[in-house]
Amino acid sequence: MWVPELAAPGASLTLDAETAHHVVRVCRARPGDRLTLTDGRGRRAVAERLPSSSGVSVRIVEVAEIPRPAARILLVGAPEGERADWLIEKAVELGITALWPVDTERAVWRRQGSGRERWLRLARAALGQTRRAWLPELAGSGPLDTVLTHLPADAERWLADPEGLPVGATRIQEARPQAALVGPAAGLSTTERGLSTDRGFRAIRLSRGRLRSETAALAVAAWWAGWEPGSSGETS
Amino acid sequence: MWVPELAAPGASLTLDAETAHHVVRVCRARPGDRLTLTDGRGRRAVAERLPSSSGVSVRIVEVAEIPRPAARILLVGAPEGERADWLIEKAVELGITALWPVDTERAVWRRQGSGRERWLRLARAALGQTRRAWLPELAGSGPLDTVLTHLPADAERWLADPEGLPVGATRIQEARPQAALVGPAAGLSTTERGLSTDRGFRAIRLSRGRLRSETAALAVAAWWAGWEPGSSGETS
Repeated sequence: MWVPELAAPGASLTLDAETAHHVVRVCRARPGDRLTLTDGRGRRAVAERLPSSSGVSVRIVEVAEIPRPAARILLVGAPEGERADWLIEKAVELGITALWPVDTERAVWRRQGSGRERWLRLARAALGQTRRAWLPELAGSGPLDTVLTHLPADAERWLADPEGLPVGATRIQEARPQAALVGPAAGLSTTERGLSTDRGFRAIRLSRGRLRSETAALAVAAWWAGWEPGSSGETS
Repeated sequence: MWVPELAAPGASLTLDAETAHHVVRVCRARPGDRLTLTDGRGRRAVAERLPSSSGVSVRIVEVAEIPRPAARILLVGAPEGERADWLIEKAVELGITALWPVDTERAVWRRQGSGRERWLRLARAALGQTRRAWLPELAGSGPLDTVLTHLPADAERWLADPEGLPVGATRIQEARPQAALVGPAAGLSTTERGLSTDRGFRAIRLSRGRLRSETAALAVAAWWAGWEPGSSGETS
C-alpha cells in the first residue's frame, strides 16, 4: 500500500482516511495483522496494525530500500476517450518507470489538471497491488520534439509500428534505460516518424492486428516486464 | 466491423441497427465510402456504403478468406469484479483464439448468461477494431481438470508463475497451438499447480511485480502477439 511517508522501524504511523479504509475494508486487516507499505520512492516496509479505538495505526516492523529499477519510459500519443485510465493502472503493475504523454500533429492530450490527480491515485493504488516500491513518473504532456530531448542519452528506443520487427524476436538490454513511442489513435505523421527514426528509434511490431494506442502501450510494458531480472527483492 | 453474415462480391447487404449506428456515427462513413467487414469466421470483405433513404446498406466489393490462425488459448481463473470485460477486448485485439474461463478451488466464475452475451458484443467490437477475421471462442466456465482435457494434444502449455522463467527469454514455436493458464486473484492451489505441471505446463514469469489475474492474462496475449508471423493478409 502506498503511503506519503514511512516511519523508521519501531515507530508508529497513523494512516490517512483513504488508506485506512483500504486496510480495513479491502484487505480486512485486523489488529496484529501485517501489511506491506511503500512510499513510492524506493522504501518498502512491513507494518503491523495496532489496536486502536479511533483511526487506523500501524507499527513499522522493518524497512527495506529497493534499488531504483532501470528506466522504462512509455511515450504515448493521446488515446480515444478515457482509455488512458486503465493504461496507467496496468502499466504501473507491469513496472514502467515513467509515462510521458506526447502531443502530436493528429492528437493532443486534454485534461491535465484533475486528470493528473486521478492518474496519481490510480498509480498509487496499482503500486500497492503490485508490491513495487517506486512510483512511476507521470509527466504532463508536451510536444513530441520537446519530449524526445528529455530521454536518457543511453536509452534503447523503440517505435510501435506494424511494419517493424516482431518483438518476440527482439531482445532488449535489460540494464539499459528503455523508451518506447506509441502513436495516438490517428497515428503519427510522416514527419513525426522521420523525427523518431532520426533520434534512434527502431520499429517493432507488437501484433499482427491493428492495436488501439493504449493496448499497444500495454503490450510494450508487458514486453519489458518479460525481461525483468528476478534477483531483486521486489518479487512478492 | 463484425457482421453476422457476409454476402458474395457484388451483392448488397443491409446492416443491422447496431452496426449501422457504428458505421454512421463512429466511422462517419458516407455513401461511397469503403468499410472493412468480417463475419468472424475467416472471411473479410471490403464493402462500399450505398446511398439509401432508409437504413444503411453496403455493396460487397471483394471478399478474402483469411487462414485460421494457430490456436492461442487463454485459460483464466476468475478475476475480481468486472475486470474480465476489458480483458476480452484487449485479448481479442492481441489475437487470442480462445478464452476458457476456469473454475478453481479458490475462485469460481459468476454470471454466465448475460455476461456471455456482453462478452460476445465486446469481442465483436474489438474484432472490427483490430481488423482480424476470426472471432475467438469464448467458452463457458468449467472446472480446471475438465477444461485441461480439451486442450489440443500438441499445444505448448504455459503457467503464469512468479517463480518461472522470464518470458522475455522464452521463445514459443509460433506454428504450434499455445495455451496458458493464469490463476485467479487468490492463486492456484498446490494441487492445481501439480495438476498443470503433470499436464505439461511450464512456468513462466511475466513480470517481477505481482500482477492481477487479468493483467497477467493480457501480458500472455501480448507475449504471443509479439511472435505473430507477419506474412498473412491480416496486417491493417
